[in-house]
Amino acid sequence: MVAAPPYHVPLPHLTKDSWRDEAAKKRDQLASLIPAEWQLSPEALDAAGDDVRGLAASSGILSDRELDITELDEVQELASRIAKGTYTAVEVTTAFCKRAAIAQQLTNCLTEIFFDDALEQAKKLDDVLKSTGKPVGPLHGVPVSLKDQFDIAGKELTMGYVSYLGRISKRDSALVALLRDAGAVFHVRTNVPQTLMIGDTFNHLFGRTHNPINRKLSPGGSSGGEGALIAMKGSILGVGTDIGGSVRIPSAFCGLHTIRPSTRRVPYGLATNSMLGQEAILSVPGPMARSLASCTYFSRIVFGLAAKYDATALPFKFDDAAFETAKKHDKLSFGVIRTDLVVTPTPPVKRALDLAVQKLRDAGHEVLEFDWSDFTGAWEVACELYDADGGEDFRRTLAAIDEPLIEGLIIDPNGLRTTYEVWQINRTKEALQQAFLDRWMASQAQTSTGRPFDGLLCPAAPIPAPRPLGNKHVGYTAMFNLLDAPCTVFPVTKVDPAVDKPDSAFKALTEVDQQIHDEFDSTLTAGLPVALQVVGQRWRDEEVLAVGQIVADIVGSQKWEQ
Amino acid sequence: MVAAPPYHVPLPHLTKDSWRDEAAKKRDQLASLIPAEWQLSPEALDAAGDDVRGLAASSGILSDRELDITELDEVQELASRIAKGTYTAVEVTTAFCKRAAIAQQLTNCLTEIFFDDALEQAKKLDDVLKSTGKPVGPLHGVPVSLKDQFDIAGKELTMGYVSYLGRISKRDSALVALLRDAGAVFHVRTNVPQTLMIGDTFNHLFGRTHNPINRKLSPGGSSGGEGALIAMKGSILGVGTDIGGSVRIPSAFCGLHTIRPSTRRVPYGLATNSMLGQEAILSVPGPMARSLASCTYFSRIVFGLAAKYDATALPFKFDDAAFETAKKHDKLSFGVIRTDLVVTPTPPVKRALDLAVQKLRDAGHEVLEFDWSDFTGAWEVACELYDADGGEDFRRTLAAIDEPLIEGLIIDPNGLRTTYEVWQINRTKEALQQAFLDRWMASQAQTSTGRPFDGLLCPAAPIPAPRPLGNKHVGYTAMFNLLDAPCTVFPVTKVDPAVDKPDSAFKALTEVDQQIHDEFDSTLTAGLPVALQVVGQRWRDEEVLAVGQIVADIVGSQKWEQ
Repeated sequence: MVAAPPYHVPLPHLTKDSWRDEAAKKRDQLASLIPAEWQLSPEALDAAGDDVRGLAASSGILSDRELDITELDEVQELASRIAKGTYTAVEVTTAFCKRAAIAQQLTNCLTEIFFDDALEQAKKLDDVLKSTGKPVGPLHGVPVSLKDQFDIAGKELTMGYVSYLGRISKRDSALVALLRDAGAVFHVRTNVPQTLMIGDTFNHLFGRTHNPINRKLSPGGSSGGEGALIAMKGSILGVGTDIGGSVRIPSAFCGLHTIRPSTRRVPYGLATNSMLGQEAILSVPGPMARSLASCTYFSRIVFGLAAKYDATALPFKFDDAAFETAKKHDKLSFGVIRTDLVVTPTPPVKRALDLAVQKLRDAGHEVLEFDWSDFTGAWEVACELYDADGGEDFRRTLAAIDEPLIEGLIIDPNGLRTTYEVWQINRTKEALQQAFLDRWMASQAQTSTGRPFDGLLCPAAPIPAPRPLGNKHVGYTAMFNLLDAPCTVFPVTKVDPAVDKPDSAFKALTEVDQQIHDEFDSTLTAGLPVALQVVGQRWRDEEVLAVGQIVADIVGSQKWEQ
Repeated sequence: MVAAPPYHVPLPHLTKDSWRDEAAKKRDQLASLIPAEWQLSPEALDAAGDDVRGLAASSGILSDRELDITELDEVQELASRIAKGTYTAVEVTTAFCKRAAIAQQLTNCLTEIFFDDALEQAKKLDDVLKSTGKPVGPLHGVPVSLKDQFDIAGKELTMGYVSYLGRISKRDSALVALLRDAGAVFHVRTNVPQTLMIGDTFNHLFGRTHNPINRKLSPGGSSGGEGALIAMKGSILGVGTDIGGSVRIPSAFCGLHTIRPSTRRVPYGLATNSMLGQEAILSVPGPMARSLASCTYFSRIVFGLAAKYDATALPFKFDDAAFETAKKHDKLSFGVIRTDLVVTPTPPVKRALDLAVQKLRDAGHEVLEFDWSDFTGAWEVACELYDADGGEDFRRTLAAIDEPLIEGLIIDPNGLRTTYEVWQINRTKEALQQAFLDRWMASQAQTSTGRPFDGLLCPAAPIPAPRPLGNKHVGYTAMFNLLDAPCTVFPVTKVDPAVDKPDSAFKALTEVDQQIHDEFDSTLTAGLPVALQVVGQRWRDEEVLAVGQIVADIVGSQKWEQ
């Protein structure tokens, strides 16, 4: 047998007895990378409430100009201003480093800080622009934050495992190399949950990340560090990953925009992951930002270049024609999935969906019901595939230093399946994928446009941001990982306790439905964003970005708080 | 656990005691579908020698016009003549049915005969063309033969297993539906080896298919029925599948042209396969024909439509711009892989490679050495993945009626790997894929074109067609399945005992190398085709078709016998 590349072996100084101390040292070291002049005063920290989004502006740490820079939501606009010389890369990078430092102090969203490298890189980019008159690429000088999976040569990467302390990346991951060549600057990496396989963000190395809109609540996960950071405007564009909802859930809980692209369009190669080599449901990197246009800008850059850096990525360019065609239709037709039949959407989510449906109809579009009954297996099969190694991958990573599993995660040895059994589960997966395609194509007979559905409308989660450990059902997102459908997510409205009253007719579909119903608290979550998904057809990401943009504009996704 | 779609359960009348009789009945039934007037006389059969390719012409069964039709090598030309009314679909179909019937009598290449359905379908197509003036699609009236994996609704499909007798397909496979919509007519399905996992063609239901160029020899496999049929001109275009070389080996052994496309560009959905649900190395359908242009014509039709029929297929259209750009370069640069370091190419294969290199250089192109040392693991890892269920899939299919494995196949229970172990093998696979991409991109520094290699040149097999059971090493093809590189194959020359003398300096690299060396017989294989692969980059099939065409033209692939 040809040997697989070795997993990381914990360094000798990490032991069952020492790891807690070593983890504390790492946290101290991280804190020490925030310059004193970027530290919030103890008074400011004490006075900070649940919603900490305003503290960057009031802190006095950023100049007005730096605040202006970081308030921008459009990546293309920022890149254009740098390219035109309106801002230098150094001042942009400084602004975002400051604001990321503030985000870290208030939400604990970071794992690695590269402020010095980022500023040095920004300086080089300014010099290039000055000497050549040309930006090096479409992200010239734009700081991009990275989930703590994307290796940067020479930097430590821990991915939420204490046992990974001291793991120094030998090589840039493919996406990092691509973005760097496009002109991006890397200022920080962001927090994740241990194993990445939970829709929340905490681990034994860095602790818990908080939702900046209400720090009592979870930012979601697993790309929750990105969620908190971008909501704090410590980054204008971040890259997360998604195997069951991990870019969509934190985007939904933090009021951001994202796309979970189809598999293999954004390069994952040479990055770190849990469950490496598991291919039945591929994790996918996706952009997170404060506008869907920013996600489209990212996709346009990355799709065609991916295969030059990553042997597992598709080489097909962003299809401008498909994007433009999808945008041009006067009337669109949507299918709406109102429930996954496992967990009932809580009142604000139901309201957001009704609101979106109404606004789409008011705008002249068509919305038809899409009954999910035939597809409830998608969530079930996804769980089968996630657990198929019986937890061996996690166990091996944790065992070396007796690192405990985090609360909320359970290794179920009964999940173990043989290779032959996994093949049978894959057959079920493919049958569901085919049934989903058949259903979608058959909708052509239902719609008044003469086309099959232009997209599906669906909750991103049954709840707004919950308390820590409260995110108990990721089925609304994971089902589309199983089907490999590209999904955009954006906020539609905010929780309003005055209208989001419990449904007196509620009847639980399942045990977890009852739990989620019981735990939902519209007073606690007042003002939190409520998001929807617009779902597209496999590998037709251009169309779901175009159609998602139309829906986002109609519901006013960038003004969800108003 | 959501249940996988059930495997076929053998029908009650099939038992351990009855299956031989039932298999004989199936063969009789197949033979009965050849009309008496299309049967060769006992005298003609007796007089037939080893090379039976001329017998269609001498049989008197086809008219001169029918012979002309079936002598065409270009699918596009045939389609164009039907569209223009030069030929009717009925006369074209009649011609190919006759010639397929003759091929069957001489090489035993068929499993199913649909002559009546084909003629009925052809009649309908003629009516459509008459009434509308337009062909229904780019394959209007073109008979397409199918490997015995592509389900047609209402027809029996056995895929080389006696235990599948009585298995009636409920639905067209995706590719069948697509080709039918494009105007294709299905006249026959073709023979395969039991399990599909051997580069030869024989099973307990239909027996052995013979190489029409020398019936003492194997046509290769697993798409060996296609190889024999198309070499006999009983089909102008066939579809095989390839998980380790199964379209390339029979094409090489029978003097045909083919492409093993990258994964997911040609739809496999709803077709039958062995090892269903195994996704670590995906089998791929590919066209087989007597010209590479015919394979390009097929690819151009299929690529963009695939995803409408098949949820597992990519939706990206044939990229005409990439194809044209690749064709336009004045000077191309190739890497040449002279040995896979497991089995040494036999003298005619070495000569064919030297010849191609010389002709390319003479034509002004560049050929540089590509040392395979770093990639010998590709073959080894492929074997690991093929065997990872420990033979469970084959065992279950065979056990119901105690159907014995065919000679040459071994179920190795030691191949069994756990799910976690398969993940580790996948990691090795990805590392090899990445190393291959890195090596390819780095070639830019070596070439004089300023581009990375435009293609790799490599033997298709270390041998020309061997005796039955003699095809003992499929590494030259399987290594590119592991790397998922698209590969074209075409003949370069023929075996010439006068020059293809044993290498007196031969030293065996491995045990199988010694065996293959010992068994090679240039007298027995005199006149047999010798083929090469031109290999491209993953998912860039358009470029390997374009570059492959240039090489094929330079070496004179369609005149390999001259």
